[in-house]
Amino acid sequence: MKSKLEDILNKLHRGEITPKNALQILKDFPYQDLSFAKIDHHREIIRGFPEIIYGLGKTDSQISKIAQEILKKGSNLLITKLEPSVFKKIKKKIPKIHYNALAKAAYLKQKKPSLGKGKVIIMTAGTSDIPVAEEAFVTCDILGNEIEKIYDVGVAGLHRLFGEYGKIKEARIIITVAGMEGALPSVVAGITNSPIIAVPTSIGYGASFNGLAALLAMLNSCPGGVAVVNIDNGFGAGYLASLINHL
Amino acid sequence: MKSKLEDILNKLHRGEITPKNALQILKDFPYQDLSFAKIDHHREIIRGFPEIIYGLGKTDSQISKIAQEILKKGSNLLITKLEPSVFKKIKKKIPKIHYNALAKAAYLKQKKPSLGKGKVIIMTAGTSDIPVAEEAFVTCDILGNEIEKIYDVGVAGLHRLFGEYGKIKEARIIITVAGMEGALPSVVAGITNSPIIAVPTSIGYGASFNGLAALLAMLNSCPGGVAVVNIDNGFGAGYLASLINHL
Amino acid sequence: MKSKLEDILNKLHRGEITPKNALQILKDFPYQDLSFAKIDHHREIIRGFPEIIYGLGKTDSQISKIAQEILKKGSNLLITKLEPSVFKKIKKKIPKIHYNALAKAAYLKQKKPSLGKGKVIIMTAGTSDIPVAEEAFVTCDILGNEIEKIYDVGVAGLHRLFGEYGKIKEARIIITVAGMEGALPSVVAGITNSPIIAVPTSIGYGASFNGLAALLAMLNSCPGGVAVVNIDNGFGAGYLASLINHL
Amino acid sequence: MKSKLEDILNKLHRGEITPKNALQILKDFPYQDLSFAKIDHHREIIRGFPEIIYGLGKTDSQISKIAQEILKKGSNLLITKLEPSVFKKIKKKIPKIHYNALAKAAYLKQKKPSLGKGKVIIMTAGTSDIPVAEEAFVTCDILGNEIEKIYDVGVAGLHRLFGEYGKIKEARIIITVAGMEGALPSVVAGITNSPIIAVPTSIGYGASFNGLAALLAMLNSCPGGVAVVNIDNGFGAGYLASLINHL
Amino acid sequence: MKSKLEDILNKLHRGEITPKNALQILKDFPYQDLSFAKIDHHREIIRGFPEIIYGLGKTDSQISKIAQEILKKGSNLLITKLEPSVFKKIKKKIPKIHYNALAKAAYLKQKKPSLGKGKVIIMTAGTSDIPVAEEAFVTCDILGNEIEKIYDVGVAGLHRLFGEYGKIKEARIIITVAGMEGALPSVVAGITNSPIIAVPTSIGYGASFNGLAALLAMLNSCPGGVAVVNIDNGFGAGYLASLINHL
Amino acid sequence: MKSKLEDILNKLHRGEITPKNALQILKDFPYQDLSFAKIDHHREIIRGFPEIIYGLGKTDSQISKIAQEILKKGSNLLITKLEPSVFKKIKKKIPKIHYNALAKAAYLKQKKPSLGKGKVIIMTAGTSDIPVAEEAFVTCDILGNEIEKIYDVGVAGLHRLFGEYGKIKEARIIITVAGMEGALPSVVAGITNSPIIAVPTSIGYGASFNGLAALLAMLNSCPGGVAVVNIDNGFGAGYLASLINHL
Amino acid sequence: MKSKLEDILNKLHRGEITPKNALQILKDFPYQDLSFAKIDHHREIIRGFPEIIYGLGKTDSQISKIAQEILKKGSNLLITKLEPSVFKKIKKKIPKIHYNALAKAAYLKQKKPSLGKGKVIIMTAGTSDIPVAEEAFVTCDILGNEIEKIYDVGVAGLHRLFGEYGKIKEARIIITVAGMEGALPSVVAGITNSPIIAVPTSIGYGASFNGLAALLAMLNSCPGGVAVVNIDNGFGAGYLASLINHL
Amino acid sequence: MKSKLEDILNKLHRGEITPKNALQILKDFPYQDLSFAKIDHHREIIRGFPEIIYGLGKTDSQISKIAQEILKKGSNLLITKLEPSVFKKIKKKIPKIHYNALAKAAYLKQKKPSLGKGKVIIMTAGTSDIPVAEEAFVTCDILGNEIEKIYDVGVAGLHRLFGEYGKIKEARIIITVAGMEGALPSVVAGITNSPIIAVPTSIGYGASFNGLAALLAMLNSCPGGVAVVNIDNGFGAGYLASLINHL
Repeated sequence: MKSKLEDILNKLHRGEITPKNALQILKDFPYQDLSFAKIDHHREIIRGFPEIIYGLGKTDSQISKIAQEILKKGSNLLITKLEPSVFKKIKKKIPKIHYNALAKAAYLKQKKPSLGKGKVIIMTAGTSDIPVAEEAFVTCDILGNEIEKIYDVGVAGLHRLFGEYGKIKEARIIITVAGMEGALPSVVAGITNSPIIAVPTSIGYGASFNGLAALLAMLNSCPGGVAVVNIDNGFGAGYLASLINHL
Repeated sequence: MKSKLEDILNKLHRGEITPKNALQILKDFPYQDLSFAKIDHHREIIRGFPEIIYGLGKTDSQISKIAQEILKKGSNLLITKLEPSVFKKIKKKIPKIHYNALAKAAYLKQKKPSLGKGKVIIMTAGTSDIPVAEEAFVTCDILGNEIEKIYDVGVAGLHRLFGEYGKIKEARIIITVAGMEGALPSVVAGITNSPIIAVPTSIGYGASFNGLAALLAMLNSCPGGVAVVNIDNGFGAGYLASLINHL
Repeated sequence: MKSKLEDILNKLHRGEITPKNALQILKDFPYQDLSFAKIDHHREIIRGFPEIIYGLGKTDSQISKIAQEILKKGSNLLITKLEPSVFKKIKKKIPKIHYNALAKAAYLKQKKPSLGKGKVIIMTAGTSDIPVAEEAFVTCDILGNEIEKIYDVGVAGLHRLFGEYGKIKEARIIITVAGMEGALPSVVAGITNSPIIAVPTSIGYGASFNGLAALLAMLNSCPGGVAVVNIDNGFGAGYLASLINHL
Repeated sequence: MKSKLEDILNKLHRGEITPKNALQILKDFPYQDLSFAKIDHHREIIRGFPEIIYGLGKTDSQISKIAQEILKKGSNLLITKLEPSVFKKIKKKIPKIHYNALAKAAYLKQKKPSLGKGKVIIMTAGTSDIPVAEEAFVTCDILGNEIEKIYDVGVAGLHRLFGEYGKIKEARIIITVAGMEGALPSVVAGITNSPIIAVPTSIGYGASFNGLAALLAMLNSCPGGVAVVNIDNGFGAGYLASLINHL
Repeated sequence: MKSKLEDILNKLHRGEITPKNALQILKDFPYQDLSFAKIDHHREIIRGFPEIIYGLGKTDSQISKIAQEILKKGSNLLITKLEPSVFKKIKKKIPKIHYNALAKAAYLKQKKPSLGKGKVIIMTAGTSDIPVAEEAFVTCDILGNEIEKIYDVGVAGLHRLFGEYGKIKEARIIITVAGMEGALPSVVAGITNSPIIAVPTSIGYGASFNGLAALLAMLNSCPGGVAVVNIDNGFGAGYLASLINHL
Repeated sequence: MKSKLEDILNKLHRGEITPKNALQILKDFPYQDLSFAKIDHHREIIRGFPEIIYGLGKTDSQISKIAQEILKKGSNLLITKLEPSVFKKIKKKIPKIHYNALAKAAYLKQKKPSLGKGKVIIMTAGTSDIPVAEEAFVTCDILGNEIEKIYDVGVAGLHRLFGEYGKIKEARIIITVAGMEGALPSVVAGITNSPIIAVPTSIGYGASFNGLAALLAMLNSCPGGVAVVNIDNGFGAGYLASLINHL
Repeated sequence: MKSKLEDILNKLHRGEITPKNALQILKDFPYQDLSFAKIDHHREIIRGFPEIIYGLGKTDSQISKIAQEILKKGSNLLITKLEPSVFKKIKKKIPKIHYNALAKAAYLKQKKPSLGKGKVIIMTAGTSDIPVAEEAFVTCDILGNEIEKIYDVGVAGLHRLFGEYGKIKEARIIITVAGMEGALPSVVAGITNSPIIAVPTSIGYGASFNGLAALLAMLNSCPGGVAVVNIDNGFGAGYLASLINHL
Repeated sequence: MKSKLEDILNKLHRGEITPKNALQILKDFPYQDLSFAKIDHHREIIRGFPEIIYGLGKTDSQISKIAQEILKKGSNLLITKLEPSVFKKIKKKIPKIHYNALAKAAYLKQKKPSLGKGKVIIMTAGTSDIPVAEEAFVTCDILGNEIEKIYDVGVAGLHRLFGEYGKIKEARIIITVAGMEGALPSVVAGITNSPIIAVPTSIGYGASFNGLAALLAMLNSCPGGVAVVNIDNGFGAGYLASLINHL
């Protein structure tokens, strides 16, 4: 196609057509003929961070290659859902890389990211929800956010939650991570004014149906100000929280 | 069969067999031959209340007949899930009957039931849950219980719930009625020591899936002490609460 | 309680009460007081076969004990859902026992069961459905039935099915075993007059949802004459077929 | 195609080919060339009853036409799932037709069907299950079966069930109709030796999910001898029962 | 943005930049700056038919406006899922419009569409599936296809299906429409070589779960060559069939 | 309890205890004794807006009372999910009230709310999604936000979406409303950097399962930056967007 | 905050404000400022038992630490859902600890708990349900209850159930544990007057859907007096039974 | 039956009946008597390819036998869903066989298949979808199709998709393979005119519910021209694409 466009430009250059003609012709170009435009670069700019590597179902050599590509550009690196065994192999190729074993996430900060405006608070209902919360933490951290963790403050013991009320009030955005009945975001939304990102977890058994119970509960949260991401999607919550925090 | 039994009794009476023989023969009687036993009366005694009439899908004349039968025995009457239009027709035949329009339940107290030992508290998360709560109330009431209603104290506004903490503490049994995310029983179970009967309601829309969200949440309630009845089953909750309260 | 009954019998014996009195008293006996009746023996007679041992979740020593008890009475033995490793241990204690490895069922015929009146045909849609079909076969066989197997005649190749039409016509009862779209019973019901027991299998992947697709299809079978048992329940199908065949 | 076949027959008739040749040629005929065979008549014979009319979604004139066609042949007529309003219109065209309002089924017996060998017992757990049971009854009746109805004997009051034990024992086949927890077939299967057809009904509310609860319960019935038809499918149960009863 | 582009063209025209420079600059244009390209026209060309109007949830005046717009361009018109009452109002504004009452579809052919290369066969399992089949028919027809309808040939009576084998063989594409157990496409795929588009319908009751049973069955179809569209989506099947037929 | 507290304060006042003693005693106060604290007022402050009235299931007189209470305080009023017939009755009592018929929401602005920092863009995939989008609009509007609506830009015609790219880029927060396959938020998230609130709608039929398809799709959105609210929950999306926009 | 409160107390002490003033100021304290209250101790008192340790997903060292903390206080210890391998490691640190291998629960009684008022009966339908029943047993036992176990009395053999009728009658509370069709609580509720806690188990296969069938059946239990806990939640049933038994 | 047919042919041969008589008699032959017809051969011809071997659940010796049978006839061989360990054993018996490790498919081309008329394009949304795409590729390839693969062009980065627009335009049929939100086919259908076969994959976690989310999204695809096969069914998509491409 390029040749077709070059042709027009050349014709214009040679004076065979006027700028007005050229414009008219370009307008009538079907969509795909413009596909050379710098969409890709543009996208990198708008999203502000190179693609995060989703580790699941990728081989260590695939991941290593992409990771090295990202590092070459001087960017920060984040790999999520990465099994320890795969990490070990990557570590050999990228020795400086770190691993958050709870979150199953690897990362390497080459430059300090610009900080978001406020504090992101990450809360869990129970200790079993911590791995998902840590994925959110690692994500928020590498994207540049001040973070405070408040773990194990589920609704079964409201006093623990209220004991942290002072901190909660100061959050710009709150991520609530909970399995089982998933009631934490509803309760937190009732006592604060911050936007809340709710992450259901697959913690539980029986009629938790791998997180379905918590997911549905969160989607039906009575008080306004709550939105939900996929079950166990700590990354998604952290990413969105960071977007909001950088507004 | 009776004749067979009579035969044995007669033989024993005539001395043709010994009591020991008779006993042996009776032992070998197959199960069904004993079906004349007073199972029915027995059951009425053990359950302590004549059958409650489930109004749904019955005609007014069917209901009226059963109701009149119950009333003749001097028993108290309770009809649940009764549409107003059906009630009107029954009212003509049983003029003294009352109707709780919210609960869609008709009742007639002929004698004062013996009171349960403590107080049953019936709570709702929202005002839309009240009809189900009222069904629980009507049931508890006719079965003889001191009842306190605490409505519209959902987790979205914990202050309303805590404002009632004094009353909640005094409950012998608590019925919590909630739709949407169904978090009320979890929160209440965290601040009290009473057994809690959780009633999910079909209140909500979208991913509440007609009460499924609340049902699952309640089944996954973190703190101990919570058991669940069917969606919108105020009667079941009230009946069980009364059983417990009369222990 | 026995003493109470003995008491009555003794009184009757001593002439202190009449047979009519005794009868009256017995009639008023509450239900549970008659629990000594020979329910158990009776049940063994009506079901015509000692309890089949469901092997899943039982230890080899538990199974061996029950099995030996059954064998002592001279009865035939059937153990379903029995893993090969567990069978090996049982085999050491009961050397004569046989194992149908496809069906994962162990059995031992000590006496020839009375034969049902007609032929039971067991059909499968595919070869992967055969284990479930074999469980039906083993069950039918030990309960005394003439059986014909017609395997791998799914609706994707109707010619194979029609090639067996002659046999199909002669069936007294037909068991159809199929996974995936579960269409076999519908097609067979359309070309025969025998009662059909449909067994959905968990064969398939993706939207077969472990047999749910086949189960629903079979429950919605257009032509009359089809009833369905649980997914992978070859035993249930074989047992019911045998009951019908012995009518 | 007929011409092709005629051609062969003519050639054979003229002695141009031998019977052996003709047979060989016919064998090689592709399948569809034989489609003129009297499949249809054959099917009427094997199923022993003209097609039952499924009334749902058909207009009164459509139904009347098919019905009159069936009646002309001297056959008995059965129309299921027929709304009263549609029946009224059909009644004008076929004045002798009867209507079972509970079953929403119309029928007309022109000849006495041959009776099945034993008795079909139709049981319901509650009174709300009766319409489905009546559909089974109407179906069994027109197909020629001795039927005994035992209604409202659900497991909540076992004494009522056991009161009918004498009758239950005499059944050749039992149809159990139940909604809600659907426990009736399990209990009946435990005390009898007859094949049981279980019909879940959509009776109930909330977590009955329109009969799903009863359906699943019945599919998981512990004791052998139970098979299940679609929710509310009284016709299917009656049809299958009749097939078995005529074996 | 246009000005920016005009600027470049003008500069090139004036010889201030070379064609090579211009090309380089254009390459670096971010994506959105090219949005003036004639995507819209292009799309109209590639899809070959103006947008079909989905009637559900639109007012008669909304539909009339869009329809008149389409008609002005001389295009053919198709409106699906259109209630009779809404159609009547549209008819007043567009008197020439036709209505297929079964399909609930309105249409107006202004020009003869170019015909697809072969025959599209539309089959239904039952008479209740016909409305969905008619929607497929109307769609195929206005898009220019030779169509043959073969209705009421479900698997419960294979003879009816085989009676149409001659026609089936001649299909270029087959649309199979079926509710309940949804077995028709599997059977048809087993006896033909044409691509099959399977349309599950919401026909049935109980465990058909509004077409879910048929949908799952079709997705699990054993023989290759079957793809599935949404429940009751006659339009989608007809549209795809036409696309294939015009290849 | 107050007396107990007063008692302490009095004792302190009288010098019978020291401030240190008083503090110690207060620390040991059990939780509920502090329930007089101004939780309620506090909550009104933190949430920044009086309770929004959820109209569903409330009578016109109930709503009118609450509404008048809110209006008396000089606050702005919002009533969601309000049927037109109920609105009419409320209108008589509160003549100045407005009604957004698409959104089924009533509102009355008494004071100008403080504006959020940026622009909220509300997009819909189709025209049928507009009612839900309008609910989001009404909510955002009364809470004080600059809003831009971009309706009917679903992924089936990407050119329409890209035609609005300029506007989309300028959004501070984006609300995407879509039914059917629910792909809009995924596509938008791929071309922008704003946080996205995805609202699945119940638009569609068949396997859309009343919005379940769109809900699941949105929860599984590939690109980061998307969170989801309940099906048809325009209010929830608008409320959260406003919270974020006021950060 | 404390300083603010101290400040007030000091002012009062110094006579700068009156007790009435102080009270007024305290009343206006926002909620969170009171968070120092002894909620925690209070909660320990009301629940009467230190937190039970949910073993799943915790490391042996985490569990050991919490356990030792509990033991130091002289409390009794209960750890549920504890794998044998993890128990072994804990046993080394806490040699006196016991393990119920069936229940997968560890416990250590340091002091005799006060006994509940009556007898808790724990019933199972089959032998495979015993592990869940044992979890209920261990829980009830350490919380102080007289317990009677009645195992393997499922509805498939009612005679076994009735054989235990004498015991059943004496229960204050009954826990029924059942998988598959989950009919046990319905049957037991029909013959007794005690409150019944129903525990569905994941026992079964195919359409038991990991306990969903039993769960739904129990939620739809016809007779009143039944409430349900999560699938396999023996602990929850035992805990609630103990609460009721200590009323 | 053959004898009966022979009998007729012989009679005709001997002149005892006329050809017209013979034809009449044959017409009245019941269906099954014609089962000897060459259905099987016919089917092989119409489907144009010997049965593809579905490897799952078959032993290596079973597969080897069928494979060798197919190879003997000179046909091409395709085995799908074949585990590497099973392949190794087959490789020993059929050394020339190839294995596509990603697709888990073995194949052997003995003759060049006739090519379809156009190009089949196989697209994936992500790299994790590639195994399913490769199964489609292997299938299309051995059935004779020109294929172009366009992998990892999911909607999260539309620029990658549009970068391939030139190729996409040239497709005769497009297979789109996608997990998670499954939006790819909707987007592609919006920019092209080719029939699209959508393959949902089980890629994802949480609320992807093993591919259900993608499946539902694809079934609800807005633009026409999309049909769906089972989750992970690369073979089905490839087979159908090839059928269409050979039209």
